[in-house]
Formats: sequence, C-alpha cells, structure tokens
Amino acid sequence: MSDDIGAFVPGQRFRIAGRAGGPLAGLSFAAKDLFDVAGHPTGGGNPDWARVNPVPDRHAWAVETLLDAGADLIGKTVTDEVSLGILGENPFDGTPTNPRAPGHVPGGSSSGSAAAVAAGLCDSALGTDTGGSVRVPASFCGLYGIRPTHGRLDLSGMMQQAPTSDTTGWFARDAATFARVSAVLLGEAIPDALPRHLLVAEDAFAFVEPGTASTLRPLVDKLARLIGDAGEAVLAPPGLAAWHRAQTTLQPHEAWQTFAEWIERANPRFQFSVARNLVIGSQIPAAELAQAALVREEARGHLRRLLPEGTIMCLPTTPFPAPRCGQPLTATTALRARIICLCAHGGLTGVPHVTIPGATVDGNPVGLSIIGARGSDALLVAVARALANG
Amino acid sequence: MSDDIGAFVPGQRFRIAGRAGGPLAGLSFAAKDLFDVAGHPTGGGNPDWARVNPVPDRHAWAVETLLDAGADLIGKTVTDEVSLGILGENPFDGTPTNPRAPGHVPGGSSSGSAAAVAAGLCDSALGTDTGGSVRVPASFCGLYGIRPTHGRLDLSGMMQQAPTSDTTGWFARDAATFARVSAVLLGEAIPDALPRHLLVAEDAFAFVEPGTASTLRPLVDKLARLIGDAGEAVLAPPGLAAWHRAQTTLQPHEAWQTFAEWIERANPRFQFSVARNLVIGSQIPAAELAQAALVREEARGHLRRLLPEGTIMCLPTTPFPAPRCGQPLTATTALRARIICLCAHGGLTGVPHVTIPGATVDGNPVGLSIIGARGSDALLVAVARALANG
Repeated sequence: MSDDIGAFVPGQRFRIAGRAGGPLAGLSFAAKDLFDVAGHPTGGGNPDWARVNPVPDRHAWAVETLLDAGADLIGKTVTDEVSLGILGENPFDGTPTNPRAPGHVPGGSSSGSAAAVAAGLCDSALGTDTGGSVRVPASFCGLYGIRPTHGRLDLSGMMQQAPTSDTTGWFARDAATFARVSAVLLGEAIPDALPRHLLVAEDAFAFVEPGTASTLRPLVDKLARLIGDAGEAVLAPPGLAAWHRAQTTLQPHEAWQTFAEWIERANPRFQFSVARNLVIGSQIPAAELAQAALVREEARGHLRRLLPEGTIMCLPTTPFPAPRCGQPLTATTALRARIICLCAHGGLTGVPHVTIPGATVDGNPVGLSIIGARGSDALLVAVARALANG
Repeated sequence: MSDDIGAFVPGQRFRIAGRAGGPLAGLSFAAKDLFDVAGHPTGGGNPDWARVNPVPDRHAWAVETLLDAGADLIGKTVTDEVSLGILGENPFDGTPTNPRAPGHVPGGSSSGSAAAVAAGLCDSALGTDTGGSVRVPASFCGLYGIRPTHGRLDLSGMMQQAPTSDTTGWFARDAATFARVSAVLLGEAIPDALPRHLLVAEDAFAFVEPGTASTLRPLVDKLARLIGDAGEAVLAPPGLAAWHRAQTTLQPHEAWQTFAEWIERANPRFQFSVARNLVIGSQIPAAELAQAALVREEARGHLRRLLPEGTIMCLPTTPFPAPRCGQPLTATTALRARIICLCAHGGLTGVPHVTIPGATVDGNPVGLSIIGARGSDALLVAVARALANG
C-alpha cells in the first residue's frame, strides 16, 4: 500500500470515519478534488481555484452519502485542472502514477481516484464524468467505473464543468465492491435479472486499434453468452467523429460559461492545452452551437430507439490502453480526440455507462463498456457483477 | 535599499563584478530574466522555460558589454511570462512592487528591472522592448528608458519573442547615468548637439487621459524651449487604433511562431491572459497578416518622411500612470490595448524611443517620450540629458 504514487492532493490525505453499521462499513473511499469535503479546500486541480473560492462548510452529496453508508473517506485525489483533461497529466498537482501501467498516463480527469483504487489505497473513489473522466481512467487503470444516467444523482457540492453533461461517477477494483457502492449511490438494489439483448457496437469496434479490439473479443464473447441474445448495431450513425464534433462544440462552450467569471476575476494559471480549450470554448459561433444541439437531439432519439429496456450495447471504453506519459502537445491532442469519439455519446445523450476491466494490450489494461437506456444504471452494474461471477 | 519589493527572481540575486577600470566602473546593474547570464538559468518568467532549456554557458551580448565596461551585475529580474505582458503582473514569480506607486502595477514586461532601478537597488538595468516592455515600466516607475533602433544592438543571448520587433533596452534613475550606460551599449558617444525641430504628436496627446496630457505639458514646453523650433504633427495618420491593430496582428503571430515548438514539447503553464494571446496568435488569418504588413510598410514610410535627421517628435509614453494591481481580466485587457496604441509605432517602424520622467498624476509617475529617425538613439539620449540639465 505505497502512498507515493501521487494520487492524493498534497496535504489532503486524512481520514473521516463513516457512520457505524452502514452497508459500506469497512470500506474506504477517496474523493476527487472536485467534491466538497467540509473543512478542506476544494482545489479543482488548479492553483487559483481555492485562492478565490471559500473552504466548504459541508460535504458534497456524494461524499455525505458514502459516509452515511459507513465508508471512511481517506483523502482528496488529484484531478486534471478544473476537470478539463482526459489523460490525467497535471503540472500543478503532479500526474498520478498508473499502478497498472507505470510510465503511462492514468487517464483523466479523475486520475488520482483511479490511481488510488488501482493501487489498493482505498476500495472505491468518487470521480466526475463530463466527457469521459471516469470511463477513461477506469479503462487505463483496469477498474470498474460508472458514469450514471445524467441528471440521476444529486450533484450538490461537486464542482461543475458543463452542466448538461456533468455526472458523478465512481471506481472499484472488484465487481462486488462496485455493486455495493453503486447500490448506495444509485439508491437502488442491484438486481439479479439481466438484460435480454446485447448489441455489439460495430462502428466503435472498427474504430479502435486492432489490438484493442481483439483483446476485448473474449470478454465480448463471454458477455454474449451471459446475455444469450447478441447482435451488431451502429452506435453513431452519423459517425463517431460527428458525435465527437458535437460534444467538443457543446462541452467547451458550457465550460467557458461555467468558468468565465472566475477567469475574469482571477486570470488563473493553466497548462497551455487547458487554456487553449477554454479560449476555443469562448469562440464558438452560435450557428455551430445550434448545429451541435441538433446532432445531440438526434443522438438521443437514436439511442432511445436502439436501447429499449432490456437491451444493452457494448463497445470498447477507449481506442487503446493508456498512452505513454509526457508526449508532445500535438500527439496528446490527437489522442484526446480519438478517446472522445468513444465517450461523446455519454455527454450527448446522458445514457448510463459502465466500464469493465479484464483485458490488456501488452500488459496494459483496457476496458469493455456497456451502455443501456436512461435509468438502467443498476442493470448495467448487475451485468458487470454477473460477468465477474460467470 | 530594501530588497523585498520582489524585483528579483527568487534565488537569482548574486554579484558578478565588472571589469576594473571601465567607463561604467562603480555602477551596478540587473538583467531581466530574458538575458543569459552564464551559469544561471534563464527563466523567462515562466516555470516551464528553464525546465526544457539548458543553463547558458555564456553571457548575453548586452550583459557581457556592461560587465566589460566595468558595471557590476547584481541579479536577474522578474519579467512577465516570456515577455508577453505590459502590466508586470506575474503569478509565478510574483509582481514586483512599483516603488514610486505602491499598489499600482510596475508595468511590464521588464517589471523587475524597472522596479529595481526605481527602488535604488541598482543604477541601471537591462530590459527588452518588443511592444512597449521598457517604455511602459519606465513611465510607470518614473525612470529614463530606451528602446533603441530595431536591429542596432546584438541580441545574442536574449530570449526572442517577435524578432521583427524585439529590442534590448535599459533603465536609469538619472539622466547622467542613463547617458553613460547608453554610450556603452550604443557604442557611440552621446553628442552635445541637439535636434533642431520638435514635433508634438497631436493625435497621441489627444488620445491620453486629460490629466496625463496636462501634467506632461510643462515638460513639453521645456523641451520646446530647449529645441527652439516646435510644431504639431500626426504620429499615426490612419489612427493609433489602426497601428495598434497592425502591431497586435503581427506581434502575436510572430510570438506564436517563436514559442510554438516549446509549447508543443512542454505544454507550459501560463496565466490565462498570456495563453489566450498565444492562442489568438496561432489563429491569425493570412489575409490579416498581409494587411497588417501593408500598414507597417506605410507607417515606416510615414515616419521616414516625418522624422528626417534633426527632427524629433514627442508624445506621452503611456495614456495614464500605472493602473492599480489586481484588476479583472476585462479591465486589464482594455488597459493593455490603450497602452499599446502609444507603443505600436516602435514595433512597426523600429525607430528609437526614449522616455523621460518628470511628471506625475496624483503622485504617480508618467513619462514623456521622444522618438527620432532610425539610428538617432544617441541624439535622443542627448536630449534627455540636456532637458535634465536645463
């Protein structure tokens, strides 16, 4: 249980005991530094956020819910700056080590939460997922992770980024812990019944690196056997690139609106890539926003039709395992775009999304994702648990 | 001689003795952290510049020249990040106190050099001036300052920003020291003869705050008496705003070209305003660049016609004295634009420019500038000296 992987925000390793006798008694968790913990600054991964925002006097809803359920909070974890990042490289708080793939990025923006769980420093950890920030680090660190149905959980005390896409998610190393924590945060028992139909996202599997597609194949086959009925379908009829474009039009615009007042007051420090995305977010023409909103509307309708109750779809969580740390800006920008192609449906449509570990490429983890109808979060967790037990 | 005004880069206060017996024996100077000093990192006001650039093994030409002339180097001074700033507010190295106007910015980007000289910590200091970075802090801190003719001095060992505008300049508190240092760096004696014609830049005086124009009036009158023959003329026939536009098209484009490779490698940290200007510099359409280049060409012709040998022009150095520290981004962006209106001719045309202290608004200094034909640097210094003696 080495603590020197840089998963925790410097000075934010502590312990707040959970309520005795709750359903999560005996479990520990960490919270991404976007969640309020009473008496601790919410840093947001940026040196100039806490400088102009007060120390919170109450816990975020998700933190309070886990404490109430008996889990112990052990600290606050590193995040990409104000959650704007997908690789987990933060020059201010440092880049957490990926315990499953040293020398490779942990994924972000919930980088420290994923790294802490992967390293065994805690049983679970809270993250946020706006454009992939739980799914991607879960994939890169070999963890279970969930982006719940948008709008389902109470986000109070969680730092916003792009409200029409923001969610609270969480990680675990094993399916049983994942199910226990999920039941508490979803407020719903994880069912035994499973979906009846599986769709394999043919466009998503075609999009990823061949080695990633092939390493996931046994997990897909196992999932198909578990569900019984399996077929193929297209996740994004206009193209994953078109959905990428819509999401990377809407999300940066909203992020700019979220942070503009703070930027006006504080002229904050950012790594160049983060500042650039904010500037681009401030420049998006209204016509582009309107077009992206149309694409979003159509995507929602498509997934309503494609994923009725009882049907789930599987896809690779990321197009490849964790890239190497410290690559040049052009390379990381291109990697980020490819990653977002597989995540954009989440922000656009709000469907729940669970990522499941179990495959590797050259020893580095990569996850298999399942998505379902809005509100089917517990069913997806049930699939993940059944797959682990099968 | 308090040293706690934040003028020096942390850890970069030292002493390198000048050659004995030179013309500047007994004088001390400091160098902006854009100049190489052998054995000391060139930080450039940014935490990620020295990280990827080697510690220099030789002095910059200007540093070497002053040491050879007998001045002692006492340290390296704070600068706006990679010289991209005009107010002197640096969140990484700190904002130097303006000794002449506490609570107000020192001006930038040669902020620490100006503050150190104004506080009496050294007799002179090296700065750089691309878009106003010597002239503005000299005005705000009540100092003599020069932006020499572009292309006249050897800039080796000085960090570039926008090569077609970059110059090495310097500061002094008094006219005699200013003349001594200028003679060495210009490699030319400061003459006794003075120009025969003075033009007062009517558009520039109309542009500035009325209190600034009126406080400079006695200095203009004194200058007119010194020269003998005085008239009015327009500095920028297409408008100071048009010259501002040309300069803020060409300079950020060049700055982006200068720093793009570093940004690609290091994804550096910047305060938002600096990153935004770099992003904007990367986005300028070719047609805008071509138009700005035309405006520059026309400006050069205009000043060649307006300022033959023996004629100088005077204008306010800045539209107002130093603004208060810590203003919101929108406010500082607007202040910066107004300041650049009075500086743009330097970057566009390359004429030499000397700023002279001697006026205040509510106790805060503001400078009077004189410009002349390319190569007339020593003549401008002679005018500053004669004005002090007159």
